[in-house]
Amino acid sequence: MSELGNLEFVRPAEIERRSFQIISDELGDRALNPEDAPVIKRVIHTTADFDYADTLYFSPHATERGAEALRAGCSVVTDTTMAMAGINKRVLGRLGGSVINFIADPDVAREARERGVTRSAVAMDHAARLDQPLVFAIGNAPTALVRIYELVSAGLMPAPRLVIGVPVGFVNVVESKELVRGLGVDCILAMGRKGGSNVAAAIVNALLYLASNDARE
Amino acid sequence: MSELGNLEFVRPAEIERRSFQIISDELGDRALNPEDAPVIKRVIHTTADFDYADTLYFSPHATERGAEALRAGCSVVTDTTMAMAGINKRVLGRLGGSVINFIADPDVAREARERGVTRSAVAMDHAARLDQPLVFAIGNAPTALVRIYELVSAGLMPAPRLVIGVPVGFVNVVESKELVRGLGVDCILAMGRKGGSNVAAAIVNALLYLASNDARE
Repeated sequence: MSELGNLEFVRPAEIERRSFQIISDELGDRALNPEDAPVIKRVIHTTADFDYADTLYFSPHATERGAEALRAGCSVVTDTTMAMAGINKRVLGRLGGSVINFIADPDVAREARERGVTRSAVAMDHAARLDQPLVFAIGNAPTALVRIYELVSAGLMPAPRLVIGVPVGFVNVVESKELVRGLGVDCILAMGRKGGSNVAAAIVNALLYLASNDARE
Repeated sequence: MSELGNLEFVRPAEIERRSFQIISDELGDRALNPEDAPVIKRVIHTTADFDYADTLYFSPHATERGAEALRAGCSVVTDTTMAMAGINKRVLGRLGGSVINFIADPDVAREARERGVTRSAVAMDHAARLDQPLVFAIGNAPTALVRIYELVSAGLMPAPRLVIGVPVGFVNVVESKELVRGLGVDCILAMGRKGGSNVAAAIVNALLYLASNDARE
């Protein structure tokens, strides 16, 4: 339609492919680790923020190991319903996993009030009691990430198969990521203040597409 | 605990207040429109991205009018389940509104396939048939925003009470926001490529807190 001016009609199936092409072009000859590039590009696709090419930290082979865990049917613990909403549950379910989120559990809310800590931290205590291998995807609450650090350090939880630690914000966010970086677990972190539930979901989805050999980048 | 190094214990209820104080401090003497400042600060709180202090566009009195609409019980149409998950439905419900999202409707998926357009665009056609005042919160799909433009331009939908237009991405995203800016409807837009479902939800929530005289900033 002529009144749409500069708009170009792009078939729905083309939009994502075209977007990734633009991202690759603008990254130019930046030296991304080829193993991690699909994760980095998907986060940029979700945020339009190229800062993530600098701030995403990957422990050695975190991408490969995270994808392996999901391929084997590992479930994903999140700290928000937003991250849960953003994760591709169809692909996750096909691989045998599901999304686990204790944040809306009334027991968690009550225990958080009683202990004077966040619901997100208490939700991690509940996850620690699950007797199964887990990927954690924390996009909002630094208190959840700190609690994972405490639980693993104290031997109260086995090392997760992967910790995706991308909380966003201004209070203890930077520090929570530094703690997990020093913990020696497989992890993907957005160093600094930025991150979010959308970023957490994007990283899980990138790993899911690698795990399921989805043709998407 | 000593091993937590630089981490400072902050009571859960304090975290948000403290975060907004840091945001205000770092914004310094930047001249934000006082009416819009709570919206801008909440978006920065959600993203840790100060770019939004420059890129958020408000049509005259959009914040006040959006808050008024929500105070009167107006419902919110979103384009993603992520935005839906992020909106404070407790406060929205108390004011009499709800979140409306057609994206998971099987009819929408089928119609999108048949017409070769996105599900998000078709979802807006369904919203246009609702006989009630609406706020639109579009955080993902520029095709949804373009469809709102087409529907209002063609007289097929009354002007929404507010259009929150913050899709993110690389294909037709910038252009979709320019179109809506020129449409003459009350709107809050994130000009440029950035945005997201988290940003859409943050803007709705900021308006909800203004509408309900919530003490939060």
